[in-house]
Amino acid sequence: MSHKFSVAVVNVGDELLLGIRENSHLGYIGQLVSRRGGDLVHAHVVRDDVDEIAESIAASMKLADIVFVTGGLGPTADDLTKEAMAKVLGSKLVHDSSVEKVIREKFQSLGRSMSENNLRQCLRPPEAEIIENRWGTAPGLKIHREESFVYLLPGPRSELRPMLEEKVLPELESKGCLCDCSSWLQLRTAGLGESAVETRLASIMESRPHVQFAFCAHAGIVDVRLSPSGPDTGTAAVNQVGEECRLMLGENFFGFGDDSLAKILILQLRCWERSLSVAESCTGGLLASSFTDIPGASKVFAGGVVAYTNATKVQMLDVPEPILQQHGAVSAETAVAMATGAAERLGSDYALAVTGFAGPDGGTAENPVGTVYAAHFSPSGVWSKRLVLPGDRVAVKERAVNETLDWARRTLNRYKLHDFLACPCEE
Amino acid sequence: MSHKFSVAVVNVGDELLLGIRENSHLGYIGQLVSRRGGDLVHAHVVRDDVDEIAESIAASMKLADIVFVTGGLGPTADDLTKEAMAKVLGSKLVHDSSVEKVIREKFQSLGRSMSENNLRQCLRPPEAEIIENRWGTAPGLKIHREESFVYLLPGPRSELRPMLEEKVLPELESKGCLCDCSSWLQLRTAGLGESAVETRLASIMESRPHVQFAFCAHAGIVDVRLSPSGPDTGTAAVNQVGEECRLMLGENFFGFGDDSLAKILILQLRCWERSLSVAESCTGGLLASSFTDIPGASKVFAGGVVAYTNATKVQMLDVPEPILQQHGAVSAETAVAMATGAAERLGSDYALAVTGFAGPDGGTAENPVGTVYAAHFSPSGVWSKRLVLPGDRVAVKERAVNETLDWARRTLNRYKLHDFLACPCEE
Repeated sequence: MSHKFSVAVVNVGDELLLGIRENSHLGYIGQLVSRRGGDLVHAHVVRDDVDEIAESIAASMKLADIVFVTGGLGPTADDLTKEAMAKVLGSKLVHDSSVEKVIREKFQSLGRSMSENNLRQCLRPPEAEIIENRWGTAPGLKIHREESFVYLLPGPRSELRPMLEEKVLPELESKGCLCDCSSWLQLRTAGLGESAVETRLASIMESRPHVQFAFCAHAGIVDVRLSPSGPDTGTAAVNQVGEECRLMLGENFFGFGDDSLAKILILQLRCWERSLSVAESCTGGLLASSFTDIPGASKVFAGGVVAYTNATKVQMLDVPEPILQQHGAVSAETAVAMATGAAERLGSDYALAVTGFAGPDGGTAENPVGTVYAAHFSPSGVWSKRLVLPGDRVAVKERAVNETLDWARRTLNRYKLHDFLACPCEE
Repeated sequence: MSHKFSVAVVNVGDELLLGIRENSHLGYIGQLVSRRGGDLVHAHVVRDDVDEIAESIAASMKLADIVFVTGGLGPTADDLTKEAMAKVLGSKLVHDSSVEKVIREKFQSLGRSMSENNLRQCLRPPEAEIIENRWGTAPGLKIHREESFVYLLPGPRSELRPMLEEKVLPELESKGCLCDCSSWLQLRTAGLGESAVETRLASIMESRPHVQFAFCAHAGIVDVRLSPSGPDTGTAAVNQVGEECRLMLGENFFGFGDDSLAKILILQLRCWERSLSVAESCTGGLLASSFTDIPGASKVFAGGVVAYTNATKVQMLDVPEPILQQHGAVSAETAVAMATGAAERLGSDYALAVTGFAGPDGGTAENPVGTVYAAHFSPSGVWSKRLVLPGDRVAVKERAVNETLDWARRTLNRYKLHDFLACPCEE
């Protein structure tokens, strides 16, 4: 790549700032651009106001080679993007009769009468080229000014996405602005905090300045993203550094790309032809759901029990009542009994169990809210682990699922041989 | 309100521009602000670059009374928000030993050793006040400069949200910058598509121009948001129109605000002192998890079985093998047997069951991928319903959960009297 093209985005619409609609355009465009070797450098989210839109477009043109403006092209009075563009260009909107013809035909073919405000969609700055919109009425517009290309694109997702993918990107690729290759690599880790991951990779980061590092933490998972820091770094060089990082991270690394911990476990057990079941209290179905998100999970995952009351733990998982009375529902002993019960009742080789206090109520002095016990049942033994997790009810659930999965993955690898000796694979 | 306070947002993070993570902060903050009578006027989304962050903060301070900056406070080298803030202020970061004490204690209580880069989280511009972070390590910061308040907030959602809601908003409310009143109203509906909801409400929308309508659809739920269309419309007028909409929507309306369908069911059953269990195949734990997201669910929700294989359906739910052989696992008969088995095994008054083909593989000519059978067991009878759902595996799971919950809500209301006669409440 001789030059990394920079892209800026202006998302227009009151609804994006009022919190009525998530701004899904930005993430979508960010992916398209970064996968094609471009660099999304800035985004503005602005109200339906001519001056503010104009200022954001002008600022973006200074910053980037390519500017995508989304929204504000429709027929109603709050659609002001073209007026704003004309203001930036210092020109006046003109009527485009070829667009009028297309819009009138579209309404006719739908058997609907056209209200006069639809004619606003025929206006364009004189410098602008029309981009056909087969998915709606408002056409897109392309403006080439000095060093920048500005694309005005319709706001509805069902029009924006096909217009970008079928019209705009092929043109930019053919001009050599964007390529059709992926310029970044993601490594997924669990078990280390964000800062510990960075410390672990510090020596590689220092000695490999041609690759840029970014870290992102979510519910116990830390993703490390590598991208070329300049035009001279190719995909192979990024992948090479990725491999160095993988080795440095050791057991904390669990996968490249977007694969979840649940997927890694399913793939491993599937390859060994082993089955798995779960018993959940505080995670209440979320652990099972993380497995059943994976296509083909049914080859490994037998199912599970959500045992939300003591009676259910006894009845469905054969947890001995004395254990519940003596140690309580949130204890290592109960977790172990739940995992064992799940494996026996569901006839699986492995089983995971989780019990804890997700909050906001519950908890004891010894085991406050956020305390979770996990258990791992395998052919060669059964283990438990105590976790102390921060956050509200939903955060504790998410985190408990991820930490349990990560621990299970490690335990699985550690005792693989013991498990095989205890219960050899059938021929 | 004498003055409508303006708010600007700066979302920091490469991952937001690379399309790796949706920028959910903006929509969330937009809602918080607009509900409290403020006006979110602009948002910047910027890379992890000191100069760009600094420029965006400076531009935002010119535009708004209050600036929220999210992200970039962590311990790693790409966390640069405080450096950028210092640049805007023309000052140098200083070490805050009170923060260091808190962070060291936090690591100690978690039994983890602290790497040195965590000390970066103790730095702050000298002008900044610390906002305590009970949900993570990086504290928030508050800076008052000229006419603006700038709040630097941590990026992880599980830290940002409680910090805003428990620390920042109460302070802004007490200062009179934001009020604690809702300037908008949300009605939740299920069972109608987005355009059908709009058509149903068209006459009200036309005759009530002082209220603005917005629609938002997600996985079978359509939310209707009402807000004042001008400064002369008060909360009472919005609520009055909300009441008209509720009546017009009839049984499709299920709640005001943010309550989920699962919460509505839990509240209703809790009030009748009835219990509920679930049996899931294709939703694989997601239905149970939707109930266990609700604090206090354990008073109603006994638990459930994720029966992902036929063997588990027979063993854990007493589904008769002849039913599976004759009708298949994805059938009305199996769904009914699963619900009945769950109610009997878990000893609950009500039970819901879901079985279907979530895809991408599976399905038959008669029951293609996306076909789901739900069953509802109650003291007075047991019913089933066939659903045909669009989307990929995860979308089918989500949609199946929502449609099953909505159907259960309607069935519960319809047969309430029969249920009570069949099984009167204990005194």
